[in-house]
Amino acid sequence: MNRLELWNRYRQHLCRVDSIGLSLDISRMMFDDGFIETMQPRMIEALTAMDALEGGAIANPDENRMVGHYWLRTPERAPDQAITREIQQSIETVRTLAREVHDGVVKPERGEGFFIVLLIGIGGSALGPQLLADALGSSDDPMLIRFLDNTDPGGIDRTIAEIDDNLEATLTIVVSKSGGTKETRNAMLEVADAYRKRGLDFARHVVAITQDGSALHTLAVKDNWLRTVPIWDWVGGRTSVTSAVGLLPAALLGVDIDALLAGAQACDEATRNHDIARNPAALMAMMWHHAGGGHGDRSLVVLPYCDRLALLGKYLQQLVMESLGKQHDRGGAVVHQGLTVYGNKGSTDQHAYVQQLRDGRNDFFATFIEVLRLREGPSIEVEPGITTGDYLFGLLRGTREALTEAGRPSITLTLDKLDAGSMGALIALFERTVGLYAELINVNAYHQPGVEAGKKAAAGILDQQASVMKHLRDHKDRSWTAEAIADALGSPEAVEMIEHILVHLSADPSRGIAREGSQPSGSSHRFNE
Amino acid sequence: MNRLELWNRYRQHLCRVDSIGLSLDISRMMFDDGFIETMQPRMIEALTAMDALEGGAIANPDENRMVGHYWLRTPERAPDQAITREIQQSIETVRTLAREVHDGVVKPERGEGFFIVLLIGIGGSALGPQLLADALGSSDDPMLIRFLDNTDPGGIDRTIAEIDDNLEATLTIVVSKSGGTKETRNAMLEVADAYRKRGLDFARHVVAITQDGSALHTLAVKDNWLRTVPIWDWVGGRTSVTSAVGLLPAALLGVDIDALLAGAQACDEATRNHDIARNPAALMAMMWHHAGGGHGDRSLVVLPYCDRLALLGKYLQQLVMESLGKQHDRGGAVVHQGLTVYGNKGSTDQHAYVQQLRDGRNDFFATFIEVLRLREGPSIEVEPGITTGDYLFGLLRGTREALTEAGRPSITLTLDKLDAGSMGALIALFERTVGLYAELINVNAYHQPGVEAGKKAAAGILDQQASVMKHLRDHKDRSWTAEAIADALGSPEAVEMIEHILVHLSADPSRGIAREGSQPSGSSHRFNE
Repeated sequence: MNRLELWNRYRQHLCRVDSIGLSLDISRMMFDDGFIETMQPRMIEALTAMDALEGGAIANPDENRMVGHYWLRTPERAPDQAITREIQQSIETVRTLAREVHDGVVKPERGEGFFIVLLIGIGGSALGPQLLADALGSSDDPMLIRFLDNTDPGGIDRTIAEIDDNLEATLTIVVSKSGGTKETRNAMLEVADAYRKRGLDFARHVVAITQDGSALHTLAVKDNWLRTVPIWDWVGGRTSVTSAVGLLPAALLGVDIDALLAGAQACDEATRNHDIARNPAALMAMMWHHAGGGHGDRSLVVLPYCDRLALLGKYLQQLVMESLGKQHDRGGAVVHQGLTVYGNKGSTDQHAYVQQLRDGRNDFFATFIEVLRLREGPSIEVEPGITTGDYLFGLLRGTREALTEAGRPSITLTLDKLDAGSMGALIALFERTVGLYAELINVNAYHQPGVEAGKKAAAGILDQQASVMKHLRDHKDRSWTAEAIADALGSPEAVEMIEHILVHLSADPSRGIAREGSQPSGSSHRFNE
Repeated sequence: MNRLELWNRYRQHLCRVDSIGLSLDISRMMFDDGFIETMQPRMIEALTAMDALEGGAIANPDENRMVGHYWLRTPERAPDQAITREIQQSIETVRTLAREVHDGVVKPERGEGFFIVLLIGIGGSALGPQLLADALGSSDDPMLIRFLDNTDPGGIDRTIAEIDDNLEATLTIVVSKSGGTKETRNAMLEVADAYRKRGLDFARHVVAITQDGSALHTLAVKDNWLRTVPIWDWVGGRTSVTSAVGLLPAALLGVDIDALLAGAQACDEATRNHDIARNPAALMAMMWHHAGGGHGDRSLVVLPYCDRLALLGKYLQQLVMESLGKQHDRGGAVVHQGLTVYGNKGSTDQHAYVQQLRDGRNDFFATFIEVLRLREGPSIEVEPGITTGDYLFGLLRGTREALTEAGRPSITLTLDKLDAGSMGALIALFERTVGLYAELINVNAYHQPGVEAGKKAAAGILDQQASVMKHLRDHKDRSWTAEAIADALGSPEAVEMIEHILVHLSADPSRGIAREGSQPSGSSHRFNE
């Protein structure tokens, strides 16, 4: 296709949505003229299914749940007024709490006010807040934010050390929908211990975001925490960023959460449109389908040319892969679906893996994200008439051309600017795209059965560890190999896991397990008081 | 395969290397008994080629260059004594400079000393330092570090705002091997302007790391910068972390760079071993080959269960994809090679995309990274007898089991601990693995021809932008559409790029280009003084 043909294709397919200041360009996606028309009936069905979902259908039948993240920014769309009120109240709670923290009305045990937020959560309870903080935060914000999103003692120590001198001015937010996520619970216990060591009452420094009636909710009520803010079973972790999960930390940083919600709402409105050519989510979902033949045969490479969007790829990795990576379709057929997402930011990634994108495996499609207004005020010239931002623009457009020349498809999303409103719109756009694409490939985008296996296995391993510890303690008189312990416990087939457990335990001198030898077989272990 | 068979396979293939405190477990890679034997002759050839490379062969013939990153930690292996001395001197320069900065001998124009490092570099000039800072840095370090790795004005503004109040105590390091990288040059000019605005002499706050004779070197000498530290054409950006590029920022943070170099040296020693079963790099390279059939048909998912290694996936993304993602093999045949890398950290990623890994597309192999000693000192109990670290261990081992059950292959690398020495070893292990795998698939791992196309296209676009600006300035009397400008410039086929340029320019009011309309065709533009 020559440049004039590409120009016509660009003009024909450009989807500009003024209400959210966003343009979607699919002209480099290499689909045939008839593709959109052919897909149209299925997309209309998908849009209709999304209408039903927004109306309160049980869109997640495996968990017998409604799927309500779109209501979070348009509460009056919720299927009953009780939900509408709960959403409105939770937003009001967030607004009020943020204001009271800023004003020192809600204040810590010692000192005048909180100025650090420590958010403890994992997966959807951390990725959204991290994305918002990185995209919209600045050093002028009323509060700093730090995150604990794992059960790694080294990581916990590092984060606590960073804020330890200011722990008395640190407001901790514990985020767990179910209240039972072990990583979050563990990090919370370590943080509570750090407050205690400083002579501080943890309860006077902590807020919970959780479902009513969860273990976390019960604890927060019992110990009289500063607040509990609700979420609901109809909000999935990976789509919780416009609930209190994302709104509260954002509001504490000074982000305009009303603008964020308004941007998401405007995007929801635009992406409900059954006129597909004017609906950027419908077009993107069709392009995802085209790229990978409806099986995810091409990975989605996310390339925002904007430092503040460097976490978008990671955020979308969860939103897309956890939603679409499914063994079964909704009819129960084994499909092993998925859509792999990776990417950091341009032009930085051009100095990393763009070599492979241009020359290597042709197994991906790129999504360039351009932000037109990157700086307020004028720029210095780095060459006559040329600014740093001109270079960023040139590198984006140049790389897009280079990929097109090499037969690598790409989408380009252009945002007029990056602010709370456009972040809300961008998030809503990808949420809707994932939902529509899931309809096209007929998978339930709202459950995650595959993560249970690893958790269950982990629980079993911790039980085994306890048995191994007890055995060594009960038989301090002699040394034991992994094989001998496995036999003694009546689980000879568990020998390898017991070996891993012994290696793990003996690495920490405070556990009292001495190991002799470094080979997997024949190394012996003994309990020392 | 039942658990006892897996245990035997584990014992048979475990590669434990005491000298670097590392174990490699390939038992879950699902290769047949005969695979390693069959591959053995090719791996011996690859090891022999690496011996030649280390001896100074022109291993990067396209650029007529030697490939010398292994010499950086064993300078006496360099093919001539002049190189040996230069390496030794550069390490001494780094050590001395770091000490003098810490002691206040090298000090800023105002105040007693530097306490912030601002590193400006992109790609290999930033990813290595970022990895080391995140893996080994802490809040007790003698200096803080910040990075600028792009030409995004928004990102530059944000980073400068963060340190602006302390700019007089900020030591800037500009890293560019060629000295011509535009992103780095642009960020440097913006930073120099920030110092100037504070009434500070940039030259008294800046160190260059560059090749002798580069444009950056010339500038640094002319303006009398604090120091220039050399790198050489035989070190590629993606393997420069054990040169001054990684060592200087690390030393300024207080990292034990001698231990880092010693760890890398010990790993180099271990991975030169022609006894393949004892050589973890040879085994890993063979597993990469097995996983993707020598074509990268499975992506490499990097899963370190260690917060401090959260950037390893991004670092390896560059090292692996830029090295292996090639259009041609060394014989000139079109091969479109590559090996896609992504991943963040466990168990956090279990709450993100592990759903897809376990249930979805079976198109990857995982590399779990376990660190045995994550914390000094004892841990609190989060359940009777159980610590946060036990959970991390259980989740790693549980997820590995769950993936194995689902037929997803994985490698497990276990490090005794994470410190400067083991980081050096880990980096050297992956460098060697990439080198050996490149030999197996017969590609030049040391050039990156594919990134030139985007840069060239970008330069052309900036020239077009200048023409568009000039045209509008010269014809202020009327409004112009993109089509009309393209025609007037005699490049009707450039109309789409001109449209993008006009959208870009008109987004910044200070450029003086007013746009009317939001549609690609027919919108008109005019220059206003």
